[in-house]
Amino acid sequence: MRTIEWRGDHAVLLDQTRLPHEVVTIDVRDVDTMIDAIERLAVRGAPAIGVAGAFGVAIAALRAEREGLPVTFVRAEAKRIAAARPTAVNLSWAVRRVLGRLHAGAAAVISEAVAISEEDVRANRALAHRGADLLEQLTHASPMRVHTHCNTGALACVEWGTGLGIVRVLHERGKLRSVTADETRPLLQGSRLTAFELTELGIDHQIVVDSAGPTVIARGLADVVVVGADRIAANGDVANKIGTYPLALAAARAGVPLVVAAPESTLDPATASGGDIEIEVRDEDEVLTLGGVATAPRGARALNLAFDVTPADLVTAIVTDRRVIRPAAGERP
Amino acid sequence: MRTIEWRGDHAVLLDQTRLPHEVVTIDVRDVDTMIDAIERLAVRGAPAIGVAGAFGVAIAALRAEREGLPVTFVRAEAKRIAAARPTAVNLSWAVRRVLGRLHAGAAAVISEAVAISEEDVRANRALAHRGADLLEQLTHASPMRVHTHCNTGALACVEWGTGLGIVRVLHERGKLRSVTADETRPLLQGSRLTAFELTELGIDHQIVVDSAGPTVIARGLADVVVVGADRIAANGDVANKIGTYPLALAAARAGVPLVVAAPESTLDPATASGGDIEIEVRDEDEVLTLGGVATAPRGARALNLAFDVTPADLVTAIVTDRRVIRPAAGERP
Repeated sequence: MRTIEWRGDHAVLLDQTRLPHEVVTIDVRDVDTMIDAIERLAVRGAPAIGVAGAFGVAIAALRAEREGLPVTFVRAEAKRIAAARPTAVNLSWAVRRVLGRLHAGAAAVISEAVAISEEDVRANRALAHRGADLLEQLTHASPMRVHTHCNTGALACVEWGTGLGIVRVLHERGKLRSVTADETRPLLQGSRLTAFELTELGIDHQIVVDSAGPTVIARGLADVVVVGADRIAANGDVANKIGTYPLALAAARAGVPLVVAAPESTLDPATASGGDIEIEVRDEDEVLTLGGVATAPRGARALNLAFDVTPADLVTAIVTDRRVIRPAAGERP
Repeated sequence: MRTIEWRGDHAVLLDQTRLPHEVVTIDVRDVDTMIDAIERLAVRGAPAIGVAGAFGVAIAALRAEREGLPVTFVRAEAKRIAAARPTAVNLSWAVRRVLGRLHAGAAAVISEAVAISEEDVRANRALAHRGADLLEQLTHASPMRVHTHCNTGALACVEWGTGLGIVRVLHERGKLRSVTADETRPLLQGSRLTAFELTELGIDHQIVVDSAGPTVIARGLADVVVVGADRIAANGDVANKIGTYPLALAAARAGVPLVVAAPESTLDPATASGGDIEIEVRDEDEVLTLGGVATAPRGARALNLAFDVTPADLVTAIVTDRRVIRPAAGERP
């Protein structure tokens, strides 16, 4: 199934907090449920939460039409949805886009939201093939070893994936040797989700703790680093899951290419640079516990920064569904 | 109590795998128990495992004397002890040192082992005061914010601590504002042990996931980074807990000093550079589980690199019990 789908009058999404041990779906029929799913990362990944946001507005528009509520109700709901998570620009972008169809009625909003999800699938495939071509140019290693962070696979999108979509195309072409994946604390999207997808795809891989990623790169165990993005500023700075910046530092020092894979909707020309991107600070308990097990003494405090910013000069290339941008060489989106 | 102590005819150590939730000691009366404690990190930290190794040889020497076994028995036991963990040089150094007294009998070996543990306490205090002086020179922030990794406190030594010993002196001088500590996956020495020690000392602190350390530095939330070492090569390269290298990269880029705190016994003139240091690869299950909870799909594989190497050019200073060395400025140990 797809990570997130529209079914007649509601959305269905895969609960990613339960993976890999359980495959459970959630029927989303009201805005509160959608906001909750976005906030607790039942649906996650910049492209997927964009689609989730659009479906959330569709649910609000449908309710407004059924109950005779004014458009101001839908706009207020849309504002709440867009505020569910601050860093990924895809969420506010998708919400804004479907709101543009609100004057034409709920069916038009639904149709626009479904269009966004279909475009995501097409964009991912285009991006993945362009990215695979680029990687074959950037490294002479064949087959190649890819290091990645967090989850940029089908689960981060509607289907197929961005960064992991590239990996998948390389695998199909017989150009992939293996993948090393950071576990991605605190919520373990790497070990829970990326390892799950790679296992399903039959791709040879190993999980490492996040702090080992830079050593994998420094020791020559990766030919290229591929990550996703939550927001790309006008100057080419990239906000992505916490832990991307240390990989970029290590890759630059080792002369290993760092490739950022993201659809055009992740580019944010309205944000001048990485310093202007709001970095989400999440609940301390995500750091202080794991699977219900306390990892620190009672009363300990944590600072849970969910994203970091990689400066443009460390980004070898950004691959989108339409183009390749080379920030380290001075190109700007 | 001390982390590790000699009591008449056996050693007693604090089981660090049980902290912070339980305070349990282990009586060590045979070599197998000591090797097991070292291997599973019941005792850990380069200075502490040096002392543990010396006590292990003392136990073997005592048994040889009681049972009339030849010195070759003790030498073979010493070899097994020294091989329990490969990266920290303090272990083989301490084992070699007490073996030098074997010709004089078990009492002499015990006396030498106890001397090593007493010297560790004195060395830590000297190092901590010298390190605190250095930090006050290196940063104008007062009181200062220190970022640290793993555990370099009393628990890593016999008592007092190396890196965290410096922090403790700064705290006593009223020059410390707060500490940020990496949780240090996979075994969480940061959140389990460092947070425990800082809580006991009444020092304000926050835990971050390891991959957030570089962002703490990049965002100006730390005035200095202080870490320990397991082996320092002749050219100034530093092997330390996995995750040190990304902090060093981030610190160099941000212009934040990186200070390595270690006793002289951690310097290894016989190892030319970091590339010659054997990096321990530990069991995959440490990465694939946490507190008995599986973090990855069944059948997933991991690469568990326990240490990394920070090149000398990224090390602002090494502080020992006798001196300050500035590798980034071209000084060599």
